[in-house]
Amino acid sequence: MRAHYGPVENAISQLTGLLGDRLATTAAVREHHGHDESGFKPLPPDAVAFAQSTEEVSEIIKICAQHSVPIIAYGTGTAIEGHVQAIHGGICIDMGQMDQILRVNQEDLDCTVQAGVTRLQLESHLRDTGLFFPVDPGADASLGGMAATSASGTNAVRYGTMKENVLSLTVVLADGRIIKTGTRAKKSSAGYDLTHLFIGSEGTLGIITEITLRLHGLQEAISSAVCSFPTVDDAINMVILTIQSGIPIARIELLDALMMHAINRYSKTDYPEQPHLFLEFHGSEAGVIEQAEAVQQIASDFNGSDFTWATLSEDRNRLWKARHDAYPSALQLQPGTQAITTDVCVPISRLAECIRETRKDIDAASMPIVMLGHVGDGNFHLAILPHPDHPEEIEEAEALNHRLVRRALAMDGTCSGEHGIGQGKIRFLEEQNPEGVVLMRQIKQAMDPHNLLNPGKVLRMD
Amino acid sequence: MRAHYGPVENAISQLTGLLGDRLATTAAVREHHGHDESGFKPLPPDAVAFAQSTEEVSEIIKICAQHSVPIIAYGTGTAIEGHVQAIHGGICIDMGQMDQILRVNQEDLDCTVQAGVTRLQLESHLRDTGLFFPVDPGADASLGGMAATSASGTNAVRYGTMKENVLSLTVVLADGRIIKTGTRAKKSSAGYDLTHLFIGSEGTLGIITEITLRLHGLQEAISSAVCSFPTVDDAINMVILTIQSGIPIARIELLDALMMHAINRYSKTDYPEQPHLFLEFHGSEAGVIEQAEAVQQIASDFNGSDFTWATLSEDRNRLWKARHDAYPSALQLQPGTQAITTDVCVPISRLAECIRETRKDIDAASMPIVMLGHVGDGNFHLAILPHPDHPEEIEEAEALNHRLVRRALAMDGTCSGEHGIGQGKIRFLEEQNPEGVVLMRQIKQAMDPHNLLNPGKVLRMD
Repeated sequence: MRAHYGPVENAISQLTGLLGDRLATTAAVREHHGHDESGFKPLPPDAVAFAQSTEEVSEIIKICAQHSVPIIAYGTGTAIEGHVQAIHGGICIDMGQMDQILRVNQEDLDCTVQAGVTRLQLESHLRDTGLFFPVDPGADASLGGMAATSASGTNAVRYGTMKENVLSLTVVLADGRIIKTGTRAKKSSAGYDLTHLFIGSEGTLGIITEITLRLHGLQEAISSAVCSFPTVDDAINMVILTIQSGIPIARIELLDALMMHAINRYSKTDYPEQPHLFLEFHGSEAGVIEQAEAVQQIASDFNGSDFTWATLSEDRNRLWKARHDAYPSALQLQPGTQAITTDVCVPISRLAECIRETRKDIDAASMPIVMLGHVGDGNFHLAILPHPDHPEEIEEAEALNHRLVRRALAMDGTCSGEHGIGQGKIRFLEEQNPEGVVLMRQIKQAMDPHNLLNPGKVLRMD
Repeated sequence: MRAHYGPVENAISQLTGLLGDRLATTAAVREHHGHDESGFKPLPPDAVAFAQSTEEVSEIIKICAQHSVPIIAYGTGTAIEGHVQAIHGGICIDMGQMDQILRVNQEDLDCTVQAGVTRLQLESHLRDTGLFFPVDPGADASLGGMAATSASGTNAVRYGTMKENVLSLTVVLADGRIIKTGTRAKKSSAGYDLTHLFIGSEGTLGIITEITLRLHGLQEAISSAVCSFPTVDDAINMVILTIQSGIPIARIELLDALMMHAINRYSKTDYPEQPHLFLEFHGSEAGVIEQAEAVQQIASDFNGSDFTWATLSEDRNRLWKARHDAYPSALQLQPGTQAITTDVCVPISRLAECIRETRKDIDAASMPIVMLGHVGDGNFHLAILPHPDHPEEIEEAEALNHRLVRRALAMDGTCSGEHGIGQGKIRFLEEQNPEGVVLMRQIKQAMDPHNLLNPGKVLRMD
């Protein structure tokens, strides 16, 4: 494949002219940008360009296009499907210096940020405005990366994913043209929906440089709770009934018994080591009480117990910290491992069955596997933890992942609820929607005819 | 343009072989399919094919493609930007016989319908399920047409537009290939977002044959209200504060004084002939009371009076019937007229200013103009009513429309909140997003290289 691309040296020398010391070719910088948090083989780019403006991204892309050199956008490197590896070498554009919050429109509940702004940076900027941005993947990802990968997280059950929370994007195309995809109007039927075309395109159709986000008003009251169940089945049935009852729950997260054990060890907590739900309610004072009472009633029908409540901000943060530390906690169960993570999402009516069948696989596996998930959306993850010295366990893990994907597809679900395709799920995507992939390739071909933008991700173009 | 297309006769004879008497060439049927509800010149297709399945649509398109004949999908003909006129002749595919509700998944809050199912047909089918589909353009449009035009309506302020309420589509492409764009999973990050690519593409990228829709649980309590204001400014300021307060209002609709006069005449009501808001609250019994009290307080701060409440279903329906009859009511102000409708949508912080400036235009106009709108979204319409015998008034109306669009664009708004582009707004779209239109053309070119699908709509391809 490399043969299709031009030599990178001339591009590097031109880029150095443009960027000076913001064009880095040192081994350390290149290696840092050659991997995400997955176990996919690190593949450093030939150089890293630290861009500071949309116009500069455009200039960088024009130079790369002129020399037929691949271009990879880099946010915080927190993806987990091998999204940023430089499979064919080329120039990585690090968006980290594009970290300006350009405008917060409090009256319109929206804001515009540069792509390198991270979600915690925005959260801290919005403090005291009474507004918040709800999409919260575990990591402190950049908002450009979150848009590019169609990220979601624990609040999606109520507030939606990036798909529902982006109003407009500024994007640089494969030939350096700059476009805006939308306006700040709350709705629009003005031509093709370019905004959604780029959300989830993982840097393969264009590079997102600015994002206008929807914000939400902080609710009057927020109440969090943790509750344990004798079995995962009980917990899931409680979730299903809660969703089907139309209770506007803000978060409803499952963690299985081994996950709770890992959290107790990592976070020094003492939760009962059995399946748990982490819950959150947003609304008026009266509304939150109403929701909480309804959910407690449903929980008791499914043998839920050990309810712990938190309403003060610091107590809630402590409670959710344990949930957010799930991934590092899990990794500690198998030191030195590279976790293989799964990400299926199924219609909620099939969730109990999907999890039940998956548990058989978990029980039969030769390595530790934890389960957690955004079960209100029908989305759950396994972190499969093969022993670092037992390569045959990696194969076993991959086979289990593949069986799980097939199970979800048979239930009219998707192979990827929120982690994207990257390198890791290209074949799963083909299995999920072979005719759709043909169309995706046509679109990619039309928009990036020389396959310069993040080649080797999302689609096979060879 | 016609020269690019092949002669239609051979296609018609092959289609007759396929469809028998479901391929109509009589003048009456062709004329019926040659126009929507706008004043754009009727242009009948050469024949109308009444399809009954996705496979049949695929066969029809293959025949048309073989003979280079344009293909226009037709739902109910209720669009208002000249969406279905056969500008270059060709075959109209009437989706009306694809009227099967294929599946309602109560547990998953979704359903799958053929494209010809209308929204009132679905509403009646869902009666007694406790579920409803919220998107409600004025007309009893087909759900395929609503997806194709990215429709919305009065409930969008709370429940979103078609963009937020479609999970997946079955689409036939320009060469007859059939694809599914998604799954029934509630969220997905599996490759490019093909679903949103077709929503709002107005039959120019593919023909939508089946739609999987999100449904919503009927709320425990619903309460509607009508309230009058001394000025439009007061009404708008009340709307802005309601939205900014985060009150989850389900509907908030503005009608100006002349609109109320037209409704009183048409619907034999006796509302005070001054600006009104029509409101609706959804929630628990307590939640609805809480919302209603908060909104009444805000209304009284802006001189709102004459609150009329309706909670029983038949009373609410009567109240909303007046609102839904707004368009025919307006037309009666100028018998024989073809209304020119506008559809801008602006950030809500600019709405008062946008309407205030527009009112100066209305006051100076030589013909009646009514204003109504989904003001909670920042979207409002004028129905401009030129006298049928005074052609110079049409020019005046178009100039006013153009000024309004420019005003909205200058406020970071859109030329089309919900009516789409059709023939009527092609140049406005170019003004709104010239760089975006270039990309839209590239996508159209890749997906429909011979410009067979609804040519002359959304984009100029010549």
